[in-house]
Amino acid sequence: MPLMLPDLDTLNARLREGTTSRAQIVEQAAARAATPAAEAVFLHSTFDAAAQVARAADAASRAGKALHPLAGLPVSVKDLYDVAGEITRAASVVRADAAPAAADAPVVARLRAAGAALIGRTNMTEFAFSGVGINPHYGTPANPAGGEGPGRIPGGSSSGAAVSVALGLAVAALGSDTGGSIRIPAALCGITGFKPTARRVPLAGAFPLSYTLDTACAMARTVSDCIAVDSVIADSAVLPRVTDAAATRLAIPRQLLLDDLDPVVARAFDRALGRLSAAGVRLEHVDLPELGELAALNAHGGFSAAEAYAIHRHTLAARRDRYDPRVASRIDRGAGISAADYIDLGRARLDWIARMEARLDGFDAVVCPTVPMVAPEIAPLRTDDAHFFRVNALLLRNTSAFNFFDGCSVSMPCHAPDELPVGLMLSHGPMRDASLLGTALALERIVQPIVQPSARDD
Amino acid sequence: MPLMLPDLDTLNARLREGTTSRAQIVEQAAARAATPAAEAVFLHSTFDAAAQVARAADAASRAGKALHPLAGLPVSVKDLYDVAGEITRAASVVRADAAPAAADAPVVARLRAAGAALIGRTNMTEFAFSGVGINPHYGTPANPAGGEGPGRIPGGSSSGAAVSVALGLAVAALGSDTGGSIRIPAALCGITGFKPTARRVPLAGAFPLSYTLDTACAMARTVSDCIAVDSVIADSAVLPRVTDAAATRLAIPRQLLLDDLDPVVARAFDRALGRLSAAGVRLEHVDLPELGELAALNAHGGFSAAEAYAIHRHTLAARRDRYDPRVASRIDRGAGISAADYIDLGRARLDWIARMEARLDGFDAVVCPTVPMVAPEIAPLRTDDAHFFRVNALLLRNTSAFNFFDGCSVSMPCHAPDELPVGLMLSHGPMRDASLLGTALALERIVQPIVQPSARDD
Repeated sequence: MPLMLPDLDTLNARLREGTTSRAQIVEQAAARAATPAAEAVFLHSTFDAAAQVARAADAASRAGKALHPLAGLPVSVKDLYDVAGEITRAASVVRADAAPAAADAPVVARLRAAGAALIGRTNMTEFAFSGVGINPHYGTPANPAGGEGPGRIPGGSSSGAAVSVALGLAVAALGSDTGGSIRIPAALCGITGFKPTARRVPLAGAFPLSYTLDTACAMARTVSDCIAVDSVIADSAVLPRVTDAAATRLAIPRQLLLDDLDPVVARAFDRALGRLSAAGVRLEHVDLPELGELAALNAHGGFSAAEAYAIHRHTLAARRDRYDPRVASRIDRGAGISAADYIDLGRARLDWIARMEARLDGFDAVVCPTVPMVAPEIAPLRTDDAHFFRVNALLLRNTSAFNFFDGCSVSMPCHAPDELPVGLMLSHGPMRDASLLGTALALERIVQPIVQPSARDD
Repeated sequence: MPLMLPDLDTLNARLREGTTSRAQIVEQAAARAATPAAEAVFLHSTFDAAAQVARAADAASRAGKALHPLAGLPVSVKDLYDVAGEITRAASVVRADAAPAAADAPVVARLRAAGAALIGRTNMTEFAFSGVGINPHYGTPANPAGGEGPGRIPGGSSSGAAVSVALGLAVAALGSDTGGSIRIPAALCGITGFKPTARRVPLAGAFPLSYTLDTACAMARTVSDCIAVDSVIADSAVLPRVTDAAATRLAIPRQLLLDDLDPVVARAFDRALGRLSAAGVRLEHVDLPELGELAALNAHGGFSAAEAYAIHRHTLAARRDRYDPRVASRIDRGAGISAADYIDLGRARLDWIARMEARLDGFDAVVCPTVPMVAPEIAPLRTDDAHFFRVNALLLRNTSAFNFFDGCSVSMPCHAPDELPVGLMLSHGPMRDASLLGTALALERIVQPIVQPSARDD
């Protein structure tokens, strides 16, 4: 926690006071990135270029130019986004000899236009196809929350992205979320991740996992910082409708999302609910039987397997030996899906979304733990396939429900300083982003009473 | 041609003058519907209810109430739309024992709310799956343009819809267009059909053929009347950008769409181009090599086969003997399509659309004949499967290109009074509806110099 950079408001206040400079922030990030704690976070770093951007922003600021709050500050980019002149590997070796990207992905171009100092390409699960974050080719970034203990997973697929923020290398990390790939690592590393409604943010220039579910999005220290980045990459400012906590109504689902919580998660979640209740938030247990349908609906691998198979089948046939076998096995599930089954799934999803929307009408959000466990240790996951797939399914269980919902969802820390990180997830349906973020802003300070965003030690 | 009702402007002027009444128009339509010429047009007619609506509109008008131009006027509804209390058979016998619809489809409800007098459910190709319009269960409406000669097809799938307008039973016919099902029968019967960009009009309560391509739309006597109906069913008025003919720039494709025209079509099309050119329209031959890719892209049946198979596979397995064997054989093609092939097709389409949009940038529309032939005779099509499928492919060839384009497209008559009907089609890409309709309004009078919409005999 003390490793994180201050939030954007605090940083910009210090920049205005002159107690730090953008160049200094980037230099310190570069120095930290060279320590063993940052091993495997970047597949390719560009701190020199970032330092130039930072110095230029400092100069522009001194010259009285109004700058975006992100200007000159370090931002990392997940390896699946095109950056002009760089190879988009999606942390695979299959794509190591791909042609360099001709242009920035629109989301990257927008961050650059806002002045962000891009510090490099972050590690990830190969092709973004697991929630664990282990990468057999480029190593696995260690979760900073694990401290000196046994190495714990950062979560995935945006593994390096989460660690880049948690280690204080970046104020924000551009990632992506198909089944939880922003929110899972945000929760396990103790930071905040916001997955907007997918259609709000362009996916051009992002190596795809699932055309249906992929969402370009970011993680940062706070909800407010996630909103700042979202406004840039969506090229439209979300205006959060901040509500009084006492006017907020949250749905606690009776089905699925609270099952099998580990004790640390259960304790942190209960404590958060207690605080919310004490602050006047209306908490209502609701039946969401639709959640119980998800396993059957996605029994054959769902959109991700079908679409990843369409994307990879030719490469996989030619160069299977170069794939992470676990990723290949997940892609293989798509081979047996017929067009009719895929079409039926799409229609069933529309019906499912409509029923969920009807049930959640009048609620500000669904509340649940982001993931049912704290970050598990890396070592047993490396060697035991059955354990890996069991953990992976559990990591994705809660988050993926809201990708299927075509919804928006934010994970924010709700653990105590002496606990491993636990994420509290607030979620709703399609295009509820402004209202959801307003709710998240109002509740963030309540569920994190010890480590208030504006007063946190850094 | 003399059978058609006057256009809406003319009719409403006569209603204001008191030289006719809505009740009288509906009564005359009911009388015509009882003649042999209207055989097989309706699967279920509701002229009594329509007459009530007409009388109520007449009364409201007499009381000084401002009415929609469609109020109290006869409109037909293709058998695939839900009308509360009626069975939606989609002209099949498989669905003859389906439950009656609980509610109107939104497009039907909108027509009703505008005051339209719904005169009944029109015949169609079973499940809308061919452009010919032959229906082995409920008979095939004869094309009125065939006169006393051998029976000619009306075109399909909105066969009864087109004949209901061409015979003067309706001022407009609600149909649908997946590969040309509005425009083909409009062209062959000598009326006007407009297929909007699909997303503009809701498909709820319409029995689906292809989720991707289906478009709710209508045909009528003139472009202006099609616009009036479109504004109702889309619940948003298109404001056509009417341009001066001399400022109009049309693309004549070098590929595919002008191939294999029959002599009547070639003559009418050339004559129309001559008139357009004389009026100052800029006609430019353009390369659209994308059109040459369509056959390969859709070699396995395309979206319609894949999606129709998803929709029908269980019913088809249980009751194949009740399907039109030609429709069943077209649905069967979807059985062999994998999810990956279907997903690839969807992505290839997006890329194709983008390339077409780039090529057509700066043009007001693509111009071509709607179908390469005049209405063929029914008899040989009934008995010869090879002939049927050859004709069907040719009927759909030009129109379906613009469904694949996710575009908008209008077919309007361009034949001389002594010729069999020929349609001139103006088309463009997604969401170009307002500009396309403006172009169509400007050019309609030029390509129909003998039978001007505002001065036609009726």
